[in-house]
Amino acid sequence: MANYNVKIFISYREGILDPQGVAVEKAAHSLGFEKVKNVRVGKYITMEIEASSKEEVENEIREMAKRFLVNPVIEEYTFEITENSQ
Amino acid sequence: MANYNVKIFISYREGILDPQGVAVEKAAHSLGFEKVKNVRVGKYITMEIEASSKEEVENEIREMAKRFLVNPVIEEYTFEITENSQ
Repeated sequence: MANYNVKIFISYREGILDPQGVAVEKAAHSLGFEKVKNVRVGKYITMEIEASSKEEVENEIREMAKRFLVNPVIEEYTFEITENSQ
Repeated sequence: MANYNVKIFISYREGILDPQGVAVEKAAHSLGFEKVKNVRVGKYITMEIEASSKEEVENEIREMAKRFLVNPVIEEYTFEITENSQ
């Protein structure tokens, strides 16, 4: 068994209204950051998973995404896995 | 002027209580994903910035982080910049 560090990035699909992104963009503009556009605010989830292979970790992530982490109608996700050397 | 794609990853500092992370971890365990631990939920912000150099983009991000994006007492952040080829 090895320990893996996992990063999951969840964002709204294109075309889905993202109120937090709109709020951040407005704040940026009103503070003088006028060249900022297309702001989207999503979730950045990190975790550790114990597994016997990277493939097993991938399967766990996909299964968790499907079961409860991601709403596929409005969200999409990507992930990164690194083996923890400790 | 060029257009840059920016990704900003904001997470709670170690030792800071992360209620959303605790909730996701509990949900994972109760659904049978028992080998998941140390779950932390942060923010994943994407945006485009128009600038004349990558250094200018870095400065904008650091300034926005300081002014309103990040609370340095409880949060830390990293970012990635890629030049948009379009």
